Amino acid sequence: EEKTDTGSSVHRLIERFGLPQTGAETRFYINHILSYDQSRRTPRWVAEHLSGQRLQGQADRKHCKFKPDPKIPELFTARNEDYLRSGWSRGHMAPAGDNKISEVQHSSCPSSNRTLEMYCRDLTLRFSDVWLVSGPLLLPQVREDGRRTVSYQLIGEDDVAVPTHLYKVILAQKDSTLALGAFVVPNAPIGFERPLTDFQVSLSDVERMSGLTFFPEVDRAEQPKNLCDVDSCQLMDFTQFTLYISGRKVKSARTLARLEKVMTELRDAGITPDDYLTNLYLEKKRELVEKEKKPEQ
Amino acid sequence: EEKTDTGSSVHRLIERFGLPQTGAETRFYINHILSYDQSRRTPRWVAEHLSGQRLQGQADRKHCKFKPDPKIPELFTARNEDYLRSGWSRGHMAPAGDNKISEVQHSSCPSSNRTLEMYCRDLTLRFSDVWLVSGPLLLPQVREDGRRTVSYQLIGEDDVAVPTHLYKVILAQKDSTLALGAFVVPNAPIGFERPLTDFQVSLSDVERMSGLTFFPEVDRAEQPKNLCDVDSCQLMDFTQFTLYISGRKVKSARTLARLEKVMTELRDAGITPDDYLTNLYLEKKRELVEKEKKPEQ
Ligand SMILES: [Mg+2]
Ligand SMILES: [Mg+2]
Repeated sequence: EEKTDTGSSVHRLIERFGLPQTGAETRFYINHILSYDQSRRTPRWVAEHLSGQRLQGQADRKHCKFKPDPKIPELFTARNEDYLRSGWSRGHMAPAGDNKISEVQHSSCPSSNRTLEMYCRDLTLRFSDVWLVSGPLLLPQVREDGRRTVSYQLIGEDDVAVPTHLYKVILAQKDSTLALGAFVVPNAPIGFERPLTDFQVSLSDVERMSGLTFFPEVDRAEQPKNLCDVDSCQLMDFTQFTLYISGRKVKSARTLARLEKVMTELRDAGITPDDYLTNLYLEKKRELVEKEKKPEQ
Repeated sequence: EEKTDTGSSVHRLIERFGLPQTGAETRFYINHILSYDQSRRTPRWVAEHLSGQRLQGQADRKHCKFKPDPKIPELFTARNEDYLRSGWSRGHMAPAGDNKISEVQHSSCPSSNRTLEMYCRDLTLRFSDVWLVSGPLLLPQVREDGRRTVSYQLIGEDDVAVPTHLYKVILAQKDSTLALGAFVVPNAPIGFERPLTDFQVSLSDVERMSGLTFFPEVDRAEQPKNLCDVDSCQLMDFTQFTLYISGRKVKSARTLARLEKVMTELRDAGITPDDYLTNLYLEKKRELVEKEKKPEQ
């Protein structure tokens, strides 16, 4: 058997020169937790929690305790410029509630599919707590001869990887019922016609595709029910979709004029704001009235 | 500003259901250290130490202290069967000295280029200590319109990713001189003609390609010289290559008959064994004589 002195030289390597850093450590933000993929300039996974309360803005931050975001080296970050004229929008895998630039940067990837996001917001109407883990996938195409090839585009000067698919693993709780569903959608618009069950996969399938183990503390043999057995797993229709998009516009409005325009356009489309949107609108209006009273900083 | 209760729900997620596991943690073996890529079924990086002493088998293991290898879930491991009839050999990014199956499994990727490996073994003749970090790369091809596309094959039932390129970052020390070189070679045979400098890249280039930060404790502004200024950076010629390959065959010989066959073939090719190979041969011979005296287990 070959003899080695690597026990000590391993230590010399670590102490003197340092081991390679992957940057895959868990990063904590106000609204989500994530692991970043430095080689693809996208997140590996983004975990978030949704609840009726949270969406209605009734909770507070007093219980928050976060580690500061460990800085990702400039070499591995993507910028808005990378997405410009690429044909891809910068899809945030989690809402960027506290608006820190790093939070928006690290949780987004090139995407053109919000279907699952809308379904999840909808789920909070039927479940008290919804935990989500989302992220990009790079899946192969199978050729006629059986060869499998992964192909994806890089965009921008930062070489941001455009995923072929997006995944979402959903854990939803209502009273004593815990339900789990895993979904994989192509990174392309999928329309309103198809049922969400078309995109459901087994948990181990999405784990194998992503290389990740999800919700490791959940006893899989026992508890979680199939989400699509407990819930309808129905996608939103056009009205719901428009309400959802209007909600996003209301949240990001920076002036009263812009805010009113969103609501006017909605009424012009013949859609009546629901309670959720009306509350969002009123809250945002108070905030902007307050802001526009103050002199510019 | 939107209010959230995610501070507490984040904790609930971690405590009750667990955060996604990437499996990217650092794993320690007798001869190397690595981080595994569960989504590609290859290592991200493999770090090892070479020295004249180590190659001549004069050191011992008494200083070794290792954490046990955290188990990689079956879902994310590759097997020898994946490589069969794929046209790819299972290239170990580091010598698997203690022959544990997991060590071989986790440190290998589909490869067909040993050029850099041979150069590094050669380096120990001129440097007292050589630290290496090696791994696979998935690099884009640039089309005429400037679009960059990454394309790679998956092999076997485990969907092992075949890298387009391989990298090696080399840190070599001799007396007070510390020299660093980073190299990227296509994952294909490159022949004996081309100088190694053809494949040299800057450290930040290979970091950007791999998403990794190498030797983070080295002060880059100050110390390390360019390896190819200090060393010739010459690849082996055919004789050196054949000696190297014979050395590998000697190490892996399981019977005396096989061992003698390796040496006979070498002499038939008109190549005289050097001291290194002769020592390897004598050591292996003692080991096999001892083994063949004992009854089969
Ligand atoms: Mg950058
Ligand atoms: Mg396996």
